[in-house]
Amino acid sequence: MGSPTAVSAGQDHQKDRPEGEPRRSEVLSPSSPVVVFPEDAPLKLESGQLLAPLSIAYETYGTLNAAKSNAILICHALTGDQYAASVHPVTGKPGWWERLIGPGKPIDTDRFFVICPNILGGCMGSTGPASLNPRTGKPYGLDFPVITIGDMVDAQVRLIDHLGIDELFSVVGGSMGGMQVLEWTARQKTRVATAIPIAAAPWHSAQNIAFHEVGRQAVMADPDWRNGSYYEHGVVPKNGLSVARMAAHITYLSEKALQGKFGRNLQDRAARSFSFDADFKIESYLRHQGSTFVDRFDANSYLYITRAMDYFDLEAAHGGKLANAFLGTRTQFCVVSFTSDWLYPTRDSKAIVNALNAVAANVSFVEIESDKGHDAFLLEEPEFHATVRGFLTAAAVKRGLA
Amino acid sequence: MGSPTAVSAGQDHQKDRPEGEPRRSEVLSPSSPVVVFPEDAPLKLESGQLLAPLSIAYETYGTLNAAKSNAILICHALTGDQYAASVHPVTGKPGWWERLIGPGKPIDTDRFFVICPNILGGCMGSTGPASLNPRTGKPYGLDFPVITIGDMVDAQVRLIDHLGIDELFSVVGGSMGGMQVLEWTARQKTRVATAIPIAAAPWHSAQNIAFHEVGRQAVMADPDWRNGSYYEHGVVPKNGLSVARMAAHITYLSEKALQGKFGRNLQDRAARSFSFDADFKIESYLRHQGSTFVDRFDANSYLYITRAMDYFDLEAAHGGKLANAFLGTRTQFCVVSFTSDWLYPTRDSKAIVNALNAVAANVSFVEIESDKGHDAFLLEEPEFHATVRGFLTAAAVKRGLA
Repeated sequence: MGSPTAVSAGQDHQKDRPEGEPRRSEVLSPSSPVVVFPEDAPLKLESGQLLAPLSIAYETYGTLNAAKSNAILICHALTGDQYAASVHPVTGKPGWWERLIGPGKPIDTDRFFVICPNILGGCMGSTGPASLNPRTGKPYGLDFPVITIGDMVDAQVRLIDHLGIDELFSVVGGSMGGMQVLEWTARQKTRVATAIPIAAAPWHSAQNIAFHEVGRQAVMADPDWRNGSYYEHGVVPKNGLSVARMAAHITYLSEKALQGKFGRNLQDRAARSFSFDADFKIESYLRHQGSTFVDRFDANSYLYITRAMDYFDLEAAHGGKLANAFLGTRTQFCVVSFTSDWLYPTRDSKAIVNALNAVAANVSFVEIESDKGHDAFLLEEPEFHATVRGFLTAAAVKRGLA
Repeated sequence: MGSPTAVSAGQDHQKDRPEGEPRRSEVLSPSSPVVVFPEDAPLKLESGQLLAPLSIAYETYGTLNAAKSNAILICHALTGDQYAASVHPVTGKPGWWERLIGPGKPIDTDRFFVICPNILGGCMGSTGPASLNPRTGKPYGLDFPVITIGDMVDAQVRLIDHLGIDELFSVVGGSMGGMQVLEWTARQKTRVATAIPIAAAPWHSAQNIAFHEVGRQAVMADPDWRNGSYYEHGVVPKNGLSVARMAAHITYLSEKALQGKFGRNLQDRAARSFSFDADFKIESYLRHQGSTFVDRFDANSYLYITRAMDYFDLEAAHGGKLANAFLGTRTQFCVVSFTSDWLYPTRDSKAIVNALNAVAANVSFVEIESDKGHDAFLLEEPEFHATVRGFLTAAAVKRGLA
């Protein structure tokens, strides 16, 4: 079978970049490096379908050592991407985990080689529903196969193989990133030295599924969605995707954080307008969250990724016993949750810890006191950052990484 | 000024009932009794606007005694209506509070005369955005004035005056109904003997506003909403309203109830479909909740009523001190909350109780242990029902109501 093709970063197919569509151009020609696995090396998906070609776009930070023993894989969340510690090419904003990743930071790029791929199903250069379907030459849309968290991990394994890395020093991720961390440790028992699943869950609850279904129905209710083929019509289901993002965003913050940050404060006015304007700061904030999201994210990717999360159930996948997922693991775990996270609350992390304990795994568990809700893993939380730094440092010393 | 006109129940303007639009006909010609306050007796709204004519549609159960001292006013919630204990004329379903209201039931119609009006802004016969605007002869749509919970209460006062009742034996309601109960006791200090605000709050929190704003944006994103004038176009923004209902419905149930009732169970299938079908029971359930709601509810009413709830802040309305709302109250209160209600949690009810205590009001407080979430007030909760029965019975005995 053919060899994967590494395309250098920033290779720019100007012809693929229609005016005013910076996001779409990142699908076809990402600003980051991308490796392409050809037609004759398809990825076998959990659904049984084969996917080829397969592009994995990724960013790296720091330097891989000669022994290739200092690599840390960062798994991103639902709406994240490979730009964890570098400027986002569409929004121009700093990376989403600049607080964690960099020289001297908790995930120290002076010491570690950090790899952050865009997930399978994403829209920043890895193969997803906005990518071109080789059979038609047009974007996949709903012809893209439904994928799973396990499929995302299998795609990442390809990248790690391509980079010549046998064992990852660590796999780290929050939220859906944490689900990928768990799948990595379950699927690749010899290739993950340490793992940090953060604000994650071993399965998606009914309430988790419910919120995602609301978001999907909002997207699908938008006439501009056009049954997933909006690309060809030069439109984007922005209203539906915006509503989906607004609903999801509420679940990322704690009730207390919302009250503390916004309360019932009015936005740019002294009194209620007796209209449907965004009188309240919280309304204005949510509308802003919705409208900026649609500029950088693909609506179909949102459908496919939320579906993958809803399908995630590491317990069911292992005969109804979560501990079975970790049988024979040699990975050293640090499980992290946040007190005010009601999306994936501490009890979900405890289920992971209990399962790991049941197979006598090496696991530490830290519940961080925070009122920032689920999004705490992305925000300024010194105790959380100290936890990550301490765990990685100790493990590095133990493994002789200078 | 002209006298209000009582229209007998079931007066049926067949010409107003287009085929297949049972809901719309209930707006114009409700199945229940309705009293119409004429053009020259406008209701002055909190916004300063005047509203006329004003229709209040209502149901009654039981018999008003000669002293007119046994009347209980029931205030309904966001999507409720006057059919609290009688068959709904559109859905054919039993009343939404049949568990509470009836002969021998906690709100005993052998003893009490129960009045349940459709709220101002509603869509079952009381004046709302779907009603005809006398200036144009067309439905109001967005020309309907933005209303408040206080306006709803002021409209109900008109009805109670019309029925010749000086003092209500009790005012009872859950959720937004509980907010009306609080406004009744704050605005009509001499006319409410007892009050039962259930699963209520003295103000809408940032998270409450946030969920409502998502719902409103979902409705407004639907092209069939047509800036609120969909009536004239023979369409209904059903997709948007359905999404709004789905999102709201999640907040009515506890995470535990959702998990217990649905979990990750699949709907009519043995395995995941690897598609966007409603694989999970919770998805199927939510879609059903959305689609049935649009058959009985007006989208603009949903906008106006959620807005009224968001505007509700009894503390701000009384100089920033909630206790001021109840200064001089003679009402005997029974405040009820449910342990698993995360929409209006127990701390909101405790804020009400604290304010009542601060003015030395007669108040009892009961937190009901329940895993049913906010909707517990509508469901089978024997301890809750016993609480209502006990409070009303004791108060009736005290007041010499046989």
